[in-house]
Amino acid sequence: MIEKKSANESRTYQTKLVLPSDANHMGTIFGGTVLAYIDEIAGITAMRHSKSAVVTASIDTVNFVSSAKVGDILFLEASVISTGRTSMEIFVKVETEHLETGERTLTTTSILTMVAVDENKKPIPVPGVIPETEEEKRLFSEAEKRRKQRLSING
Amino acid sequence: MIEKKSANESRTYQTKLVLPSDANHMGTIFGGTVLAYIDEIAGITAMRHSKSAVVTASIDTVNFVSSAKVGDILFLEASVISTGRTSMEIFVKVETEHLETGERTLTTTSILTMVAVDENKKPIPVPGVIPETEEEKRLFSEAEKRRKQRLSING
Amino acid sequence: MIEKKSANESRTYQTKLVLPSDANHMGTIFGGTVLAYIDEIAGITAMRHSKSAVVTASIDTVNFVSSAKVGDILFLEASVISTGRTSMEIFVKVETEHLETGERTLTTTSILTMVAVDENKKPIPVPGVIPETEEEKRLFSEAEKRRKQRLSING
Amino acid sequence: MIEKKSANESRTYQTKLVLPSDANHMGTIFGGTVLAYIDEIAGITAMRHSKSAVVTASIDTVNFVSSAKVGDILFLEASVISTGRTSMEIFVKVETEHLETGERTLTTTSILTMVAVDENKKPIPVPGVIPETEEEKRLFSEAEKRRKQRLSING
Amino acid sequence: MIEKKSANESRTYQTKLVLPSDANHMGTIFGGTVLAYIDEIAGITAMRHSKSAVVTASIDTVNFVSSAKVGDILFLEASVISTGRTSMEIFVKVETEHLETGERTLTTTSILTMVAVDENKKPIPVPGVIPETEEEKRLFSEAEKRRKQRLSING
Amino acid sequence: MIEKKSANESRTYQTKLVLPSDANHMGTIFGGTVLAYIDEIAGITAMRHSKSAVVTASIDTVNFVSSAKVGDILFLEASVISTGRTSMEIFVKVETEHLETGERTLTTTSILTMVAVDENKKPIPVPGVIPETEEEKRLFSEAEKRRKQRLSING
Ligand SMILES: CC(C)(COP(=O)(O)OP(=O)(O)OC[C@H]1O[C@@H](n2cnc3c(N)ncnc32)[C@H](O)[C@@H]1OP(=O)(O)O)[C@@H](O)C(=O)NCCC(=O)NCCS
Ligand SMILES: CC(C)(COP(=O)(O)OP(=O)(O)OC[C@H]1O[C@@H](n2cnc3c(N)ncnc32)[C@H](O)[C@@H]1OP(=O)(O)O)[C@@H](O)C(=O)NCCC(=O)NCCS
Ligand SMILES: CC(C)(COP(=O)(O)OP(=O)(O)OC[C@H]1O[C@@H](n2cnc3c(N)ncnc32)[C@H](O)[C@@H]1OP(=O)(O)O)[C@@H](O)C(=O)NCCC(=O)NCCS
Ligand SMILES: CC(C)(COP(=O)(O)OP(=O)(O)OC[C@H]1O[C@@H](n2cnc3c(N)ncnc32)[C@H](O)[C@@H]1OP(=O)(O)O)[C@@H](O)C(=O)NCCC(=O)NCCS
Repeated sequence: MIEKKSANESRTYQTKLVLPSDANHMGTIFGGTVLAYIDEIAGITAMRHSKSAVVTASIDTVNFVSSAKVGDILFLEASVISTGRTSMEIFVKVETEHLETGERTLTTTSILTMVAVDENKKPIPVPGVIPETEEEKRLFSEAEKRRKQRLSING
Repeated sequence: MIEKKSANESRTYQTKLVLPSDANHMGTIFGGTVLAYIDEIAGITAMRHSKSAVVTASIDTVNFVSSAKVGDILFLEASVISTGRTSMEIFVKVETEHLETGERTLTTTSILTMVAVDENKKPIPVPGVIPETEEEKRLFSEAEKRRKQRLSING
Repeated sequence: MIEKKSANESRTYQTKLVLPSDANHMGTIFGGTVLAYIDEIAGITAMRHSKSAVVTASIDTVNFVSSAKVGDILFLEASVISTGRTSMEIFVKVETEHLETGERTLTTTSILTMVAVDENKKPIPVPGVIPETEEEKRLFSEAEKRRKQRLSING
Repeated sequence: MIEKKSANESRTYQTKLVLPSDANHMGTIFGGTVLAYIDEIAGITAMRHSKSAVVTASIDTVNFVSSAKVGDILFLEASVISTGRTSMEIFVKVETEHLETGERTLTTTSILTMVAVDENKKPIPVPGVIPETEEEKRLFSEAEKRRKQRLSING
Repeated sequence: MIEKKSANESRTYQTKLVLPSDANHMGTIFGGTVLAYIDEIAGITAMRHSKSAVVTASIDTVNFVSSAKVGDILFLEASVISTGRTSMEIFVKVETEHLETGERTLTTTSILTMVAVDENKKPIPVPGVIPETEEEKRLFSEAEKRRKQRLSING
Repeated sequence: MIEKKSANESRTYQTKLVLPSDANHMGTIFGGTVLAYIDEIAGITAMRHSKSAVVTASIDTVNFVSSAKVGDILFLEASVISTGRTSMEIFVKVETEHLETGERTLTTTSILTMVAVDENKKPIPVPGVIPETEEEKRLFSEAEKRRKQRLSING
């Protein structure tokens, strides 16, 4: 059996400057740009935990609770919050720092399922995870609940 | 009051060739690339329905039920399936055509909420929608149910 | 001999939002961006007709009869209008929808020759085409005339 | 009246390395990439001649007589070959240097018409041009012939 | 006078997955890609310290002591290590994590000078910095020496 | 032994239009964009001299002595100025042409060391270089001095 690894080992940070090409003509960042950033950091986190290639199996509902504009700075933080046999749940938090004020606001949070795959794109086993922060521990303990909720939505 | 418009008026199609730069080193398209495409076509559809700029308020759970690889062709179709005062629900379907076989498989479906905004990024009223296809009529009739489900998840 | 296929089977649609990065500092879309879009949709159409890789052999004169600006929406439609042994003529129509008015104007039309190739980049035979729309039938019947005109220009 | 300027003053050179993202999965450069490069260098040349912004009015037939692949080097050279009141004809030559052999082959030549515009996108007068090389002198003397040919094709 | 700020307040982290489009055809990352990443993180760090726009004045010698390839992960860390009246020295460290082994190696370190500017691109005063880590303290104390060395090289 | 080649054989020119996506929200080009252009042209020059793949070993201090803004034109010129066994020193000069005035100013100069490598990324021998212009001859004669200066900084 593969041993468990601390969530600290693969926790990943990103800092992005919102550029004109990430935004519409009013200077507001595209939701699609943020979604692509979320998938990218989740992928890196899952790759680092599993030491393998990964594919995105799903992304849970994303609410954009506030906006970011050209010149703002985005902070992304991602960590593994639970694991199955071949899948990993990744929690991603996105915050915006408005440049002049330095004020940080939450843009969105999201949970993705990434699956570790071999060269033939077949799912392969992943190590378990030991949650570290309070938030990770809470999310770890609620993994079963989320799985049921997903089945009820999909089914 | 703003009159209603047919879903046909803003229904939007995209065809994309999966390029090496959209994919990981195994040639599998990134989930983030597909999510960015979904947000882009939903945005175009909502802009065409509302004749205004729009922002993405949320995207419901996305399950990637099959994959696409470099050289495959993606088909995206999007239409307005319900409206609130300032918001529009957009349904997006993504299919993959495998080049050699010509076979099409479903990659994912997704529902996004886009909000029409003016130049000061204030929400503005949108026309209602008249659903046209069977799928649109079903999705239209279930709008209330989805709204409740979202509240129960967020709340 | 390879049987003929309907032009409907490979007819392809694209919808593009003109972004700041597609345009000069006055917000007018670059001709080169539109040319790249035309080549892309012609390539996808030819790939779908021939079920093989393709290369662009030529593109006939392109006149940009109207312009598009940031925030406008481009519609592209492409279909096979005639075939040789290994080559396919693709007709591409580009229209612009000005967002606020919803008015559509023709941006340009273009005819490209795409050649089907194998893994060694050798030309390979393609199926014939059955034109479907009135415009396709007219363009199909004029294929010989265009071929002669090209020879007179090149020769 | 605006005085004439030598073609030497605005003659422009580009050297491009063909990257994986410019090419299909067989490593052959996309025609659309070359077309975008041609429009870009023609635009720079016309901007330098007219000292104003420009838009692409048309591009004459482009034949891709040889190919370029990832790792090859493209050379582009562009110069003004004739002028109207507000338009400029730009001649663009594209050659490929195959890395290992150092051998150069012609990829394509092309003639574009660029129009000088002011901030309101209104056409504005351009200086005349004095051709310098033998090729430019020949192309200059044939400008009238090309204009007639274009009319006969479009009309 | 503007008060001093801790280096901790603007210290910035980036994690990047090396993609095929960042690399040559052998899969080795371009030096230019790494340089662009270094300038980007230095710019973000300087913007966060000065709460203003910034421009890059110079970048000291960069030695690429080891390489990164497609699929590897780059870690960048940047902090302010000294300040002048309107300029900030930013120290950037780039490490590579080889995916399968999890092993981290130093790719390069670099020191850049960024200048805070107002809307008319005029330099404006910046807060001083309080170094925090041992490395920052050492680099802070050597700022004068570096300034002299730069003068001797340029002069 | 490999014979020497003239610097003329691999001397390389670039002309770039500064686009909105190369610049910050004030329209000033990013230092990182210029650095990426410098590395790209140095790499092409070294590839053409050595007829092999190359990697960037180092880039000497870069001072940005003047700026470029959206709509300006950048000229880059690069040539081999000295060679070791497997390494080549490349000199790159970057100038900006301000569109309306046609005035050219120096943006920066830079010296890079590129190393020729085989498919296993092992350094391989390169031809010597014969400098041609006055500037190249001076830089050639000072190669030893630069090498010592680098050692004193690194050591
Ligand atoms: C994700 C994928 C590999 C699962 O394949 P599969 O044949 O269903 O494999 P399995 O049944 O063995 O499932 C593998 C794991 O994925 C999980 N999974 C499958 N579908 C899922 C979904 N929609 N949401 C969350 N997890 C999912 C399973 O629960 C299982 O987890 P476990 O091993 O931890 O118990 C497959 O659906 C796929 O390739 N999808 C496309 C992925 C992709 O390319 N994404 C990018 C954009 S298209
Ligand atoms: C979406 C947004 C404009 C809503 O602003 P608000 O102050 O909540 O405005 P309102 O309360 O008037 O809501 C406007 C509409 O948005 C809807 N809405 C708000 N949040 C929503 C969510 N998470 N999911 C779905 N709909 C939502 C409301 O129901 C309302 O719809 P209605 O007019 O049809 O009844 C605001 O949250 C925002 O700007 N978010 C960021 C959007 C963005 O920039 N996205 C890109 C990536 S960050
Ligand atoms: C197009 C290309 C494959 C033709 O190769 P070739 O050796 O001339 O091959 P053939 O003589 O067998 O011609 C193949 C087909 O291409 C057609 N063709 C060749 N040049 C053409 C041109 N300039 N315009 C239109 N059709 C052309 C031929 O008529 C023939 O068609 P058919 O089989 O239907 O009768 C070759 O010129 C090439 O590789 N060009 C570069 C393509 C490319 O890479 N484009 C991207 C940008 S450089
Ligand atoms: C550059 C590199 C190949 C040198 O490898 P090495 O094991 O030191 O090889 P060698 O000792 O045989 O040196 C090869 C040549 O590089 C030169 N070199 C090595 N490091 C150098 C540096 N920092 N600055 C200048 N030249 C350097 C050596 O002097 C030698 O030159 P010569 O053959 O002309 O005498 C290696 O350090 C490397 O791969 N670095 C990463 C390159 C890269 O990927 N850059 C892109 C961004 S990370």
